[in-house]
Amino acid sequence: MTTTVGAPTTFDLGPAQALSCRECGHQIPLAPEFACAECFGPLEVKYSFGEIRREDIEAGPKNIWRYRDLLPVPSDVDTYPNTEPGLTRLVKADRLAAALGVKSLWVKDDTGNPTHSFKDRVVAVALAAARQLGFRVLACPSTGNLANATAAAAARAGWESVVLIPSSLEKAKILTTAVYDGALIAVDGNYDDVNRLATELAAEHEDWAFVNVNVRPYYAEGSKTLAFEIAEQLGWRLPQQVVVPIASGAQLTKVDKGFRELGTLGLVEETPYRVFGAQATGCSPVSAAYKAGHDVVQPVRPDTIARSLAIGAPADGPYVLDVVNRTNGAIEDVSDEEVVEGIRLLARTEGIFTETAGGVTVATAKKLIETGKLDPEAETVLLITGDGLKTLDAIEAKVGPRATVPPSADAVHQALGF
Amino acid sequence: MTTTVGAPTTFDLGPAQALSCRECGHQIPLAPEFACAECFGPLEVKYSFGEIRREDIEAGPKNIWRYRDLLPVPSDVDTYPNTEPGLTRLVKADRLAAALGVKSLWVKDDTGNPTHSFKDRVVAVALAAARQLGFRVLACPSTGNLANATAAAAARAGWESVVLIPSSLEKAKILTTAVYDGALIAVDGNYDDVNRLATELAAEHEDWAFVNVNVRPYYAEGSKTLAFEIAEQLGWRLPQQVVVPIASGAQLTKVDKGFRELGTLGLVEETPYRVFGAQATGCSPVSAAYKAGHDVVQPVRPDTIARSLAIGAPADGPYVLDVVNRTNGAIEDVSDEEVVEGIRLLARTEGIFTETAGGVTVATAKKLIETGKLDPEAETVLLITGDGLKTLDAIEAKVGPRATVPPSADAVHQALGF
Ligand SMILES: Cc1ncc(COP(=O)(O)O)c(C=O)c1O
Ligand SMILES: Cc1ncc(COP(=O)(O)O)c(C=O)c1O
Ligand SMILES: [Zn+2]
Ligand SMILES: [Zn+2]
Repeated sequence: MTTTVGAPTTFDLGPAQALSCRECGHQIPLAPEFACAECFGPLEVKYSFGEIRREDIEAGPKNIWRYRDLLPVPSDVDTYPNTEPGLTRLVKADRLAAALGVKSLWVKDDTGNPTHSFKDRVVAVALAAARQLGFRVLACPSTGNLANATAAAAARAGWESVVLIPSSLEKAKILTTAVYDGALIAVDGNYDDVNRLATELAAEHEDWAFVNVNVRPYYAEGSKTLAFEIAEQLGWRLPQQVVVPIASGAQLTKVDKGFRELGTLGLVEETPYRVFGAQATGCSPVSAAYKAGHDVVQPVRPDTIARSLAIGAPADGPYVLDVVNRTNGAIEDVSDEEVVEGIRLLARTEGIFTETAGGVTVATAKKLIETGKLDPEAETVLLITGDGLKTLDAIEAKVGPRATVPPSADAVHQALGF
Repeated sequence: MTTTVGAPTTFDLGPAQALSCRECGHQIPLAPEFACAECFGPLEVKYSFGEIRREDIEAGPKNIWRYRDLLPVPSDVDTYPNTEPGLTRLVKADRLAAALGVKSLWVKDDTGNPTHSFKDRVVAVALAAARQLGFRVLACPSTGNLANATAAAAARAGWESVVLIPSSLEKAKILTTAVYDGALIAVDGNYDDVNRLATELAAEHEDWAFVNVNVRPYYAEGSKTLAFEIAEQLGWRLPQQVVVPIASGAQLTKVDKGFRELGTLGLVEETPYRVFGAQATGCSPVSAAYKAGHDVVQPVRPDTIARSLAIGAPADGPYVLDVVNRTNGAIEDVSDEEVVEGIRLLARTEGIFTETAGGVTVATAKKLIETGKLDPEAETVLLITGDGLKTLDAIEAKVGPRATVPPSADAVHQALGF
């Protein structure tokens, strides 16, 4: 972070070469920056890739670092202690396919990550970049998954962490962050208050990397690994359709970026694909903008059980609309009741227990099929990004034992209707 | 299950050739049996292995089926829908090593499995064998992890499941099983009552595979995959020391069996290794027998927060004692307070949040080091077999936010002691 005047420090972030403004295109050297000095637009990582071969990736680590030559991280990234996320299962979901009436369906099951959500991917990349950029503390504002991932990654790396959460957060989410023993601070206020506070603190503390604030350009690139893994696990080809949940929208845009990079680099054939977005109706600003044909997103006040997707003012909203329109996809939203049905449908058919965000994805896919927007003949991948163990209250009223019986075989038989 | 008199059915279970009694050595053909007809001793799978090469394993599926030629499953096992467990992270745990004062330490993190415990391994093998043996329903008595794994595996395979649990089980464990929508039956009684009921039902229902009862010989073999993965992930060699939690003791004996098979087959050099067992003092019948120098295990009534290890009459107790004595290991037990400290130590140093069973393993390793039984100079692997999200109550009283503050930077600074 110390730059000598006149001699800009160059950071080794592997293939990453510069930051570029997504609004005005202004470029700056790699730096711990996130907003364009010209227009305040969001900055994005630009690369100069070397030759990248499938064999080298396949021979790499069994985690996201097999794609290190496609990420803003140094080539020795996997020698530093990290949570080693990624290479989660891509599951052929024939029973869910039958239930939904589609021909070929896959579930990317990111519940297998170290803290059981895709956030381990983005945090691992943020930590690796932050180390190179000279930061010394890992931080974030969060309401759950990101808090878990940040606190765990910092613990594993031996970094201090500062995690800010709304004080009203459920006990379970507090415990699953506090256990890693970083500085967990509960803030009296809602998520927006906490987020504003994080931005203020990031400006004051040169050595604090707020993963989703001041190192956001690097952090967001981590979601590309979902696209890379899907393509590799399909045997180095792109799916025809993919359904992605939307909170800030970063993940969706980076899955698209990942697919494009693989095509450009010749790692897959550049076959067409369609990107679909999924939201909960109680927080569906991007879906609403899509349906209204707008190219900007009107903020909303979230009210949904899908709390990990409850971002009312999604930073990447307009870019999500671009991707969906360019790829001929669509965005849809579903009620909280449908979310719960989505969770149960996936569990019942594939034995995968997802959190509310995954319920949004499954239920949205169902609706997209029913309304003819998603082609049932085309190969489709659903991104299941979080774990049901973290949102047990969503199903609490709906599931339970078939019966409670005395310890006798007859009683069991009767309960089973024999 | 239908055997024509005089013409015994032969089942294709890959390299498995027979069942052999661990007590009297009596052999029978592969069958859906678990107890010796001669002496009621437990039956174990015997193999006739072909040539097995590292390259073939490495080129196999990225889950336990890469070891299918070492398991009682057919060679096309991975073409049937299954939860695809295994190939979980083996993490170099330098910060935990420093805290414990050992030189080279690894954590086998089985929280990354589909339902977040090692039970997905044994259930997947049980399901594959049960399919070959003609069963049609997957069943178990359980108090938690096994219930989750069985219900999920059956859902994914499209099998019916019957899962029996004590009605007093915590709500969270009921929900995480019920969500898969099998026949979950709550039984008014303790785990022993439920277990007895399962044995009774297994005798009555020819087509119900109780994974840990009537297909137990096949089921138990699934734990060998922990040994196989550790050896492969270390670069095809055995560790010098391994610490394994003990409930029934099956896992510990199968980890040993796995190491031995790898040596015999020439997949690793036959270097010496020591197997250590870990129990919670509140249910430590095997540890007590070890310390007293007995070769039988006196049943106890469990009273510990490590409920997934709370088996008072461990079926494999005597075989655990054999393994530990043969390999020059040891068995130790730790208090519930030490269990919680173990959970927190692992989370704080390595960012891995384990359940009480993992806390037992970490705390026992610590005690074994402090008492000079575990060699701090020798390379050691800890088996972390279950997930902290399932036993949140264990840490509830101990961890929480550092502070609760108003949304101001000054308040955060003050909370952090600036
Ligand atoms: C489980 C889960 N899925 C999806 C998302 C959406 O991520 P993004 O903000 O990149 O759209 C989140 C964000 O918090 C999440 O927690
Ligand atoms: C998390 C966990 N670890 C370890 C064990 C011990 O297994 P075993 O009965 O094979 O000794 C169990 C058994 O239920 C378990 O749930
Ligand atoms: Zn700009
Ligand atoms: Zn016998």
